[in-house]
Amino acid sequence: MSTRDLAERFVASLEARDWDGWTATMQPDVVYEVPQTRERIRGRDRYLQFNREFPGDWHLSPAITVADDDHAVVVFRWRVGDAEEQEEQEAIVVFGFRDGLIATVTDFWPDPYEPPPGREHLTERW
Amino acid sequence: MSTRDLAERFVASLEARDWDGWTATMQPDVVYEVPQTRERIRGRDRYLQFNREFPGDWHLSPAITVADDDHAVVVFRWRVGDAEEQEEQEAIVVFGFRDGLIATVTDFWPDPYEPPPGREHLTERW
Repeated sequence: MSTRDLAERFVASLEARDWDGWTATMQPDVVYEVPQTRERIRGRDRYLQFNREFPGDWHLSPAITVADDDHAVVVFRWRVGDAEEQEEQEAIVVFGFRDGLIATVTDFWPDPYEPPPGREHLTERW
Repeated sequence: MSTRDLAERFVASLEARDWDGWTATMQPDVVYEVPQTRERIRGRDRYLQFNREFPGDWHLSPAITVADDDHAVVVFRWRVGDAEEQEEQEAIVVFGFRDGLIATVTDFWPDPYEPPPGREHLTERW
């Protein structure tokens, strides 16, 4: 399976709570990291438990997938609950690979913030 | 030039303040977006001015570059001032292409945050 296929299957099976399909994309010793919180989870079993226990009716859908031989990145939209209730946010996951399976998963969850002053003459807002 | 070459040259010339080399990687009507602040800059000239005017002695160095036919992503480390003064943060830039040049640039600047409670039994911190 290509790195692109693995990345797409990871996201689709996670959204579907297809836990067997999801764990099949990863090495048993996969390492999951969240650089913003400096959190690390070692191993597929703990990472599975982390996602099973993650609170809320969360949903993710891929927006952009980029893949080459060594890495894949998925920019995805993420929300908890009904689409009407909460605006979707974008998040980014970076995959590393070893022996045809995902070996590292790194998540970034960028929160909205107000732009600093001094660049209004160049920018528009949406 | 490949999408990977363009992405690498974009980052290297930006760090070097090689403005001619930097603008040569982009279409004149390039669109720059920051989803977290919902800011958009249209056009290479304004985008150049934005970077020339950006305050502080900022530095960026690429950590991971992923590229395929349609997109490239660079995860880079970013700091303002001397390396000793401030911890580096990671940021992510996503490139889209048209006719052999960068056509879209999307920046994500994930800030650190404290992890929510309830997952300490699965995670370690660094």
